[in-house]
Amino acid sequence: MKVNVKLSNLTKALSVVSRMAGNASALPVLANVLISTDKNRLKLSSTNLEMGANYWIGAKVVSPGAVTAPGRLLADFINNLQDENIELEVEKANLKVTTPHHHTTLNGIEVEEFPSIPEIKASAALTIEAPELKKAINQVAVVASHDDARPVLSGVYIYNEGKTLYLVSTDSYRLAEKSLILPGAPKGKISVIVPARTMQELVRVLDESVETIEMAVEESQVLFRFGDGEIISRQIDGQFPNYRELIPQKSNTTVEIGVDQFANLAKIAGLFSQTNAGSVLIEADNGAQKLKLSSVASQVGQNVSEAEVKVDGADSQVTLNSRYISEALSTIDSDKINFSITGKINPCLIKPTDAKDFLHIIMPLRS
Amino acid sequence: MKVNVKLSNLTKALSVVSRMAGNASALPVLANVLISTDKNRLKLSSTNLEMGANYWIGAKVVSPGAVTAPGRLLADFINNLQDENIELEVEKANLKVTTPHHHTTLNGIEVEEFPSIPEIKASAALTIEAPELKKAINQVAVVASHDDARPVLSGVYIYNEGKTLYLVSTDSYRLAEKSLILPGAPKGKISVIVPARTMQELVRVLDESVETIEMAVEESQVLFRFGDGEIISRQIDGQFPNYRELIPQKSNTTVEIGVDQFANLAKIAGLFSQTNAGSVLIEADNGAQKLKLSSVASQVGQNVSEAEVKVDGADSQVTLNSRYISEALSTIDSDKINFSITGKINPCLIKPTDAKDFLHIIMPLRS
Repeated sequence: MKVNVKLSNLTKALSVVSRMAGNASALPVLANVLISTDKNRLKLSSTNLEMGANYWIGAKVVSPGAVTAPGRLLADFINNLQDENIELEVEKANLKVTTPHHHTTLNGIEVEEFPSIPEIKASAALTIEAPELKKAINQVAVVASHDDARPVLSGVYIYNEGKTLYLVSTDSYRLAEKSLILPGAPKGKISVIVPARTMQELVRVLDESVETIEMAVEESQVLFRFGDGEIISRQIDGQFPNYRELIPQKSNTTVEIGVDQFANLAKIAGLFSQTNAGSVLIEADNGAQKLKLSSVASQVGQNVSEAEVKVDGADSQVTLNSRYISEALSTIDSDKINFSITGKINPCLIKPTDAKDFLHIIMPLRS
Repeated sequence: MKVNVKLSNLTKALSVVSRMAGNASALPVLANVLISTDKNRLKLSSTNLEMGANYWIGAKVVSPGAVTAPGRLLADFINNLQDENIELEVEKANLKVTTPHHHTTLNGIEVEEFPSIPEIKASAALTIEAPELKKAINQVAVVASHDDARPVLSGVYIYNEGKTLYLVSTDSYRLAEKSLILPGAPKGKISVIVPARTMQELVRVLDESVETIEMAVEESQVLFRFGDGEIISRQIDGQFPNYRELIPQKSNTTVEIGVDQFANLAKIAGLFSQTNAGSVLIEADNGAQKLKLSSVASQVGQNVSEAEVKVDGADSQVTLNSRYISEALSTIDSDKINFSITGKINPCLIKPTDAKDFLHIIMPLRS
């Protein structure tokens, strides 16, 4: 293989594929990027066996071929280059990188050892605006579980009802649901659980030049295609919980509060609840039109903070994890939310006041 | 004790003293800040036994007294407040903090357990412009040793010759010397070794409002006074190495090179020398007017990078640690340096082309 490429193209391709490379301790070749000619383009690929990425860039292909090279080192090296014209050449199993100022060899691993990334032959089921999908993932994936004990809870459940696409995650302590209106109904019913890590990598690699994303589904795989790249991921097997029955349909008390104001109270409460599993007592006072947060760190001290808010309904109390409040609010870009309480053992509901397409539920702690 | 203070004053005082608080595992009270009334002001103090800080703020003192409270928690709490008026009160050994929206108690430790911070009675020996001193510390302290085996190498040696003040550090592999011209000669001869950590804390706490710093020396202590605060530190006992004999007086080869250009080469070389103790071979070629850096990471690959530069003198070779080059260049805000080589076993010298008040020496590695 011998090809000539532009620095800016190679940098972009590596920014997509290099960080998705896997852990060398599992299988050394997983830490490598596969570089191969594909007709008159160069294809860069990586995989950690759960998900993989492909990215194509324009190249002058002098002779076709393929090579693997350490992804992290190659990306760090290319990111520090200033010469615009780069020649890539294979010598034995190694990658030679030559520019006017640099002569470099990166030791490779035989191409045959690189695991194949599944090819998705299905045509796109749907197309989504990239900024909308990024925002939806950021709002939902944050609550996915990091625990592999119940795999479905570590994923984002994506399904449609007609032209409405839903993204949902829950770790059983909290839940976030976002809906998007598609330009048209998808081809076929969509109902997949995608690892939250895949969705978060997708957010990371989508820069502002990407306008739309195609999604295709095939048996156990799912594909996201964007511009010159694609991410392919396994689906998570299993049945997502019947979460809709958890969403409170009515509540005893609804508090209208500024997102920044509530985030500030939750952060302060969090300082005093670190030795107490983040536990903070929340009280809504209709008469005083105030929300009060109390927390106790028996070792270091205690805190009561309050804010003037709009309280509708009865006086209420509930105990929540302050970190869950902070994380929920961090995903909301509206100015105000409605925070609904329905007794000490029922889930609390957070909704932006100015949008109907998002909700976040937090389960109470026993108090 | 009962006092009223302004949020902005308390925030500023805690930014100086809270991070200098020590490690609770050594002695619990070291993690606390001492808060005490001092006539009509409030004094905040902390110490880690090596250095201590005092900071005074205006206060309405209702009743005098003192209390200690966890420094980190108090600072995190105060930094998140938005109420401008704060009341501090002592209840038993605890600190009560009250604002219109917050009622908070921080558990204290008896004031008697707080170690005394040495008082420096000596008058100021010298006054320095704060931006100049900050820059000097940043240029020098980076090479101080983190190893306590030879304590003098973990310090910054500060001494004067007439109106010239020198700051010097060395870890025996490299050395940095900066000189400052004082407005007048200091009172008495200055010759102290101050822990580099103290100097770096001083840089951290000096915000842009501080214009000048007074330095006073007393037996085993040294004091830096700035605005409403002061840092007091022990001196390091011992004799600083006679470093001047290490500074090359003439060299075989001098390379004029851009700081960014050299930093870029060193960074790339560093990628390929991580498994080789950072070792990079540097070659200056007079005929080609080029500087060439070669490095080999036997596991992952190898790199040769070169740059067009101005080479005066003979062709030369030397092997250096790429990290030391990067760190030296990171302290220089000039555009260009002269990089001097005098054979394979003599120290290399780095000097900005536009300033005579700074030099940096790097010892070669055996190659």
